[in-house]
Amino acid sequence: MISNKFKKQRSFPLTMVSEEEKRKPVHDIKLIKDMKVSELMKEFSNSGFQTHNVSVASDIIKSMVDDNATIFLSFTSNISASGIRGIIIDLVKRKKVHALVVSSGALDEDIARAKIPYLQGEFEADDTALGKKGINRMGNLFVPNKCYEYLEENISEILNKIYSGSKELTTTELLKQIGLNLHTEDSFVYHAARNDIPIFCPGLIDGAVGLQLSFFQQTHPDFKVNELKSAMEAIDVAMTAKKKGKVGAVILGGGIAKHHTIISNIIGGGLDYAIYVNSSSPYHGSLSGATTSEAKSWGKIGENAKDVTIYGDASVVFPLLIASNNYFFE
Amino acid sequence: MISNKFKKQRSFPLTMVSEEEKRKPVHDIKLIKDMKVSELMKEFSNSGFQTHNVSVASDIIKSMVDDNATIFLSFTSNISASGIRGIIIDLVKRKKVHALVVSSGALDEDIARAKIPYLQGEFEADDTALGKKGINRMGNLFVPNKCYEYLEENISEILNKIYSGSKELTTTELLKQIGLNLHTEDSFVYHAARNDIPIFCPGLIDGAVGLQLSFFQQTHPDFKVNELKSAMEAIDVAMTAKKKGKVGAVILGGGIAKHHTIISNIIGGGLDYAIYVNSSSPYHGSLSGATTSEAKSWGKIGENAKDVTIYGDASVVFPLLIASNNYFFE
Amino acid sequence: MISNKFKKQRSFPLTMVSEEEKRKPVHDIKLIKDMKVSELMKEFSNSGFQTHNVSVASDIIKSMVDDNATIFLSFTSNISASGIRGIIIDLVKRKKVHALVVSSGALDEDIARAKIPYLQGEFEADDTALGKKGINRMGNLFVPNKCYEYLEENISEILNKIYSGSKELTTTELLKQIGLNLHTEDSFVYHAARNDIPIFCPGLIDGAVGLQLSFFQQTHPDFKVNELKSAMEAIDVAMTAKKKGKVGAVILGGGIAKHHTIISNIIGGGLDYAIYVNSSSPYHGSLSGATTSEAKSWGKIGENAKDVTIYGDASVVFPLLIASNNYFFE
Amino acid sequence: MISNKFKKQRSFPLTMVSEEEKRKPVHDIKLIKDMKVSELMKEFSNSGFQTHNVSVASDIIKSMVDDNATIFLSFTSNISASGIRGIIIDLVKRKKVHALVVSSGALDEDIARAKIPYLQGEFEADDTALGKKGINRMGNLFVPNKCYEYLEENISEILNKIYSGSKELTTTELLKQIGLNLHTEDSFVYHAARNDIPIFCPGLIDGAVGLQLSFFQQTHPDFKVNELKSAMEAIDVAMTAKKKGKVGAVILGGGIAKHHTIISNIIGGGLDYAIYVNSSSPYHGSLSGATTSEAKSWGKIGENAKDVTIYGDASVVFPLLIASNNYFFE
Repeated sequence: MISNKFKKQRSFPLTMVSEEEKRKPVHDIKLIKDMKVSELMKEFSNSGFQTHNVSVASDIIKSMVDDNATIFLSFTSNISASGIRGIIIDLVKRKKVHALVVSSGALDEDIARAKIPYLQGEFEADDTALGKKGINRMGNLFVPNKCYEYLEENISEILNKIYSGSKELTTTELLKQIGLNLHTEDSFVYHAARNDIPIFCPGLIDGAVGLQLSFFQQTHPDFKVNELKSAMEAIDVAMTAKKKGKVGAVILGGGIAKHHTIISNIIGGGLDYAIYVNSSSPYHGSLSGATTSEAKSWGKIGENAKDVTIYGDASVVFPLLIASNNYFFE
Repeated sequence: MISNKFKKQRSFPLTMVSEEEKRKPVHDIKLIKDMKVSELMKEFSNSGFQTHNVSVASDIIKSMVDDNATIFLSFTSNISASGIRGIIIDLVKRKKVHALVVSSGALDEDIARAKIPYLQGEFEADDTALGKKGINRMGNLFVPNKCYEYLEENISEILNKIYSGSKELTTTELLKQIGLNLHTEDSFVYHAARNDIPIFCPGLIDGAVGLQLSFFQQTHPDFKVNELKSAMEAIDVAMTAKKKGKVGAVILGGGIAKHHTIISNIIGGGLDYAIYVNSSSPYHGSLSGATTSEAKSWGKIGENAKDVTIYGDASVVFPLLIASNNYFFE
Repeated sequence: MISNKFKKQRSFPLTMVSEEEKRKPVHDIKLIKDMKVSELMKEFSNSGFQTHNVSVASDIIKSMVDDNATIFLSFTSNISASGIRGIIIDLVKRKKVHALVVSSGALDEDIARAKIPYLQGEFEADDTALGKKGINRMGNLFVPNKCYEYLEENISEILNKIYSGSKELTTTELLKQIGLNLHTEDSFVYHAARNDIPIFCPGLIDGAVGLQLSFFQQTHPDFKVNELKSAMEAIDVAMTAKKKGKVGAVILGGGIAKHHTIISNIIGGGLDYAIYVNSSSPYHGSLSGATTSEAKSWGKIGENAKDVTIYGDASVVFPLLIASNNYFFE
Repeated sequence: MISNKFKKQRSFPLTMVSEEEKRKPVHDIKLIKDMKVSELMKEFSNSGFQTHNVSVASDIIKSMVDDNATIFLSFTSNISASGIRGIIIDLVKRKKVHALVVSSGALDEDIARAKIPYLQGEFEADDTALGKKGINRMGNLFVPNKCYEYLEENISEILNKIYSGSKELTTTELLKQIGLNLHTEDSFVYHAARNDIPIFCPGLIDGAVGLQLSFFQQTHPDFKVNELKSAMEAIDVAMTAKKKGKVGAVILGGGIAKHHTIISNIIGGGLDYAIYVNSSSPYHGSLSGATTSEAKSWGKIGENAKDVTIYGDASVVFPLLIASNNYFFE
């Protein structure tokens, strides 16, 4: 009879005792009324799939803080365009992170939103019609042209001011000067400047701020941004931090901001803590989809690091990571 | 000079006033100490990307509850294997949902975990070595063979009992009988049976419970499960609910459980509320990646329904949806 | 100077000779005029990422054929709704595969398309408006209601014929009878019936054919489909094949069709060859995203099997796999 | 009886005739022996899902060529690390594309592979162990440290040579000089330099070549790379091309290379042809997952452009696009 064969097939010698003993059981999540995010995070820890990874990340953040680690926060334009920027402004304002590594778009959105807000929209839209109305779409956010016009005027004015003081700066120095000259507190660039938190932006030229810089240089040919030196500054921050203690990174999304964070940490010996929040898959070989494990082969993350790769939407995951750690509100 | 051309290019006639007036601004998220999940959810509502969709789903759940809608909850084996099962048991125990639509694996994991727990493991594992140790992997969960052996013995015993009372049942009747005969409260099948919450399982034969049924029938050829009639029962539940009021569905994951929920609601005129949590993309044409919008063309979701498709990991998203609604804890 | 430190950091003891010796180099792809798919596939073999996996799959298919393996082909509704059905009809007609495992939707689309064609559409559409025009959307395909009405009439007529001959059938017997009674050759159900290729459909009731069966049973209560017995038939085919030689499976997409193929092969000792084409990620724990490696822990794929998981769109990948193997055209 | 209700429900007024008339039917794919890629592409055109999009892209390429459009080719490090580089070298060598826009990693891999090959590996690997053996993993490719050491020595030598001739260059000028001084023809940088095809690399500093530049500048402080001016060069190429005729782009993957291609085309009025091959989803708001439709709202792609977004692995899709167009081999 097949049933017996079936059972026999499944009854491998049950020597798995050790396996069971050394592993934690899956624990059913228990929700309660008026539950705190920190309580939910505890429930996530033994639940499986990405709940598990999210809770590992929350624990890694706790360890970074306990270790007084230097924390790099890396993110992309969409993070800066969305409500997540509020969390970043708050972290920067209260010096809870120590270096920012961003794509050029992340700068643009921070500055462009300072006066005129972005709008809630839909993923499905008549994009040509939107464009004619002066609206640019970014996922389900609508970005009015007016926001960019504000950025263009603002940056142009600030560049004149900066130029009167200095003709050559690194990207990091430039972004500090821009931050110091912004008229609004509603910006992480503003607060990073005041709190001496360096902003590294390795692809500066690829955005609206970058274009203003290029236009400005056309009429002021002696104005220079020394990006090569900026790369050394990022390495220096990482190496100096490493000499003082541990270095960690929370990396939201992919692309150049992600890569620059980890490449800047190679020479110092690799990150001690690393959290990736990826919306890409590792199976196509892109850096955006690459895992923290892969980074260990490159020495970008240390071999004894605490690290986790979360597969999910950073806009959902990052608030959970921060709201579950009371440290950030002390 | 290029700068002017650039500005000109971007300065579309600024007739977007109406667009701006009718749309809500993107709002920066503000996190606070000891924040509640419900408070976080409010912050999500104007943030963008999937935070927005998650908050829309939370609002839809509120509306379902306010409307006393009949709620279908649909899920797959991974949900049942993970800690999310705890939430489902709780919802079923307290009659907060009214029908379950599941894949066969979801039944299997519910029953198999009742005595011996599943284990926390890793996505990366030597799967052949694991298998030899009597461990089956499901993502980052490890499932001991012993759990399935418990299920096999348990179901086999229960089938003998059921057979002594009745030779032919629908799937729904069978699952109720199984639930009534389970020895443990640690199971949604157990509580669904006691609370008259029907379980629809359109692919019953494709799993461990199904195999036990097939084996049992080999030695008891007059034992029959009438699945065709089960399909009518699901339609009847949906139509009866529709006559009384509104019908909603929360669908975690894809496959047959998802499809059966929505197809069962066509004849009644389509769901009034629908939440999908998808980890698949819509661009390959799979039902698992299909959107709530697509379902409207089929009449599976009503044209005036409130609906949202969330792109994310159901194990992270679903706890947020439930923990943010105090109704579930009253 | 930092440069030396950097070099030092990177100059691990170069004991990797053995690693290099045992591994093949990445080879640049060379395209030529009027290139054949089979020639392209050869170029893919040393290219990396999913090109590599696609070429491994093509080689596994060659091995299956050389070994005279029994081949299970598993697929979902979208495959059947798209042009890929043409390849499947051809493989079935010419007996190049030996068992089909499908979702109920795959049956539906095969039969519904036989008289009135599906239409090319867009992923982005006003779905409510489409629905009102009698069009159902499936990704970028538009499915006219008329197609389903044709199916309903056709199946209803055929069921009357079948019923006059037999009151109880397994799913597999039923699908054979349906195939024998179809009026058109433009169907894999038609050719499978004539070529004694069994069709396993474990979730039969969850679709348009299934609904017709349920409706039919309402007026003919002694009409029965014994799905439990169908599950044993799938196991029997797998075990019988295993006694004769090797067993392989090509699995396009996920869900119940995928799972039923592999669970039916456990008792026989696991598949000897397995190709998955997944559009889902493994990181959310779904069966649809599960890898061939994971299946080895369950014994669904044998420990010495040749297997590969391709991450991609089956509608693009499958034609490449078949067109690159001349065997299928002999 | 339910059956009638069901039919009634489905029988929307059949006014869809116009819908059907204006749309092409789904056409079953027919494979033949020794099929050419170009023949397969024709079969793809009416098949659905991503086969359809791939065939649309192939047609767009034909149109670009017929129009004598200026073609931008944009790609990321993984493309350059894999066999796809062979196709790119060939296109550049034969002047079939007119500008390259790349991430810094794409440069690195091109140069690093010139002497010592990369190796075929596995996605699943003990990354720490690999690192100790001097191997860096990129998906399923293994990159020996030796390759990077070769790059470092090579670039360092070339920089000395360049420096003796000129102290300040744009990125584009620099990459041309590097290309002219490479010792090997096995490189797209080499052939681009000789064929006056500009390479735009907006995030130059974020990679191994970039680090060598930074190190070099430490000891040669008067050595400058003017990236701001490079941004204007990209805009100039796009605008000049636009004055002469049409401009198109084939964009493989995401990140800064993708964005720089499209932002450089805004001022000229947007791309006339655009093909994206994305492995990311649009639902998380990342630029990498953004669609060609979204780009139209920004004016990055013209409102009358021919465009398509393919969801798939660029390493599989790109060879199909090129091999199906005989033009590339004339």
